Amino acid sequence: MFLMRIGAPGAEKPIARLDDDTYVDLADVVDDFDEAFFGSGGLDRIRPVVAERAAAGQVSRFAGERIGAPIARPHQILCIGLNYRDHAAETGQAVPAEPILFTKSPNTLIGPDDDVRIPRGSTKPDWEVELGVVIGRRTSYLDSPEEARDAIAGFCVVNDVSERAFQIERAGQWVKGKSAETFNPAGPWLVTPDEIDDVLDLDMWLDVNGVRRQTGNTKTMVFDPYVIVHYLSQFLVMEPGDLINTGTPPGVGMGFDPPVWLQPGDVMELGITGLGAQQQTVLAPR
Amino acid sequence: MFLMRIGAPGAEKPIARLDDDTYVDLADVVDDFDEAFFGSGGLDRIRPVVAERAAAGQVSRFAGERIGAPIARPHQILCIGLNYRDHAAETGQAVPAEPILFTKSPNTLIGPDDDVRIPRGSTKPDWEVELGVVIGRRTSYLDSPEEARDAIAGFCVVNDVSERAFQIERAGQWVKGKSAETFNPAGPWLVTPDEIDDVLDLDMWLDVNGVRRQTGNTKTMVFDPYVIVHYLSQFLVMEPGDLINTGTPPGVGMGFDPPVWLQPGDVMELGITGLGAQQQTVLAPR
Repeated sequence: MFLMRIGAPGAEKPIARLDDDTYVDLADVVDDFDEAFFGSGGLDRIRPVVAERAAAGQVSRFAGERIGAPIARPHQILCIGLNYRDHAAETGQAVPAEPILFTKSPNTLIGPDDDVRIPRGSTKPDWEVELGVVIGRRTSYLDSPEEARDAIAGFCVVNDVSERAFQIERAGQWVKGKSAETFNPAGPWLVTPDEIDDVLDLDMWLDVNGVRRQTGNTKTMVFDPYVIVHYLSQFLVMEPGDLINTGTPPGVGMGFDPPVWLQPGDVMELGITGLGAQQQTVLAPR
Repeated sequence: MFLMRIGAPGAEKPIARLDDDTYVDLADVVDDFDEAFFGSGGLDRIRPVVAERAAAGQVSRFAGERIGAPIARPHQILCIGLNYRDHAAETGQAVPAEPILFTKSPNTLIGPDDDVRIPRGSTKPDWEVELGVVIGRRTSYLDSPEEARDAIAGFCVVNDVSERAFQIERAGQWVKGKSAETFNPAGPWLVTPDEIDDVLDLDMWLDVNGVRRQTGNTKTMVFDPYVIVHYLSQFLVMEPGDLINTGTPPGVGMGFDPPVWLQPGDVMELGITGLGAQQQTVLAPR
């Protein structure tokens, strides 16, 4: 399934996308794609509904609605740092021996095509295309990475927008440069694992103003999503609907010489094979 | 007001404590002390209700109910590191030039007298008595620390339980050692600011097995709560009901020579003048 939430911010309705033109409306059977939905077996519950309605032609046509993030605001957004070998190299840092964990404020989550706003005082706003992993059930102390497969509800594109001066130059701990309003576009779709041939071989890309900046593939990840979920489950409890940003491939603004930072009016376009594409316009501070 | 939530985990009811024996039940007027409550002017709404019911003798008597955290699971738990001059010294680190921000998973929140469980693989579990600040409204880009006064719903005791090996020796970023299940006891009360003479002159203490380990006073904070809320509001948006742990005074286990770590069966008792006291038993890993 390709799950989406469409409509005005805060009033999105849950749907299942069939193709570029049509979808199955799920607003009568699902409140939202949130913690309660994932935690109560919601994916299994809607699967036959989507199939029946699609077969019966009970479908709706997209009409230019805004696209929201494909999940409601999660309990937490966990992020893995330096998780692509070539990205670690471009930032001048060693490949980590175990996953580096940091977090973002959950209210940074926005739709895939919403505007991204530069925070006040920002001098080094930057981009990061990433594979997002959504947790499907309460997850703690998994026995193996293999067991993590059952804990994953699906995958999506995220842009882990970052302010490098806040992140690195303002008294330690990266969360400070990761949590500004609008800093986590996600979507357009939450793609369930059965729709993806090999999540460890997906092309990733990000353009700024039509110039290709990031090119990568999930096969160069240091720690794959199953290793990450197994690892994190040893330190904390993940709730259904939690989002994990699994790290970015080479080509972030910080990695260029001289560095390239986002400017008001810039347009970011990014995507991952099979997971859809995003486009954000960058706004000046409010 | 002294707000509390009493009852079984996940089924707490909201009340206002009058004294050690009696309270005003608010379950008929408030769903919970959560984001929706604080964000909709809930404190102003219940204040006359509590006064009227107390005056009319419409009160209930405590009957040994479990005490929950005084707020529902928040959108985020923000934490300030090294925020007491003398604690920074005992850990061998410099007093920071600006607040150090890290986070805990929100689902670490438990009641003040609930058990604290050592996570699997832990070798260095530690304690931290702290002043907790609860945010009262959506807060972003405050103009001054003075303006932060209106953004604070109240104060409470928290124990910022920490696993030092996970925090410091496991690939950077403190969140990894702060987010294990049960790692954030809070309460017993959320005390509104009008009930506190001077939040910058409150004694703090923590005993382990009856031995005094932490002794401090909020007057030795490096950054006071108003400076912290103003500062954080420049980097992220705080939602109503968000919790900020504002740092710990000297006497954490890590600061002793040799260090002292929590053991299964240990009992932590801690408190802050006017904000009540907590008691937790430490359990072995599950």
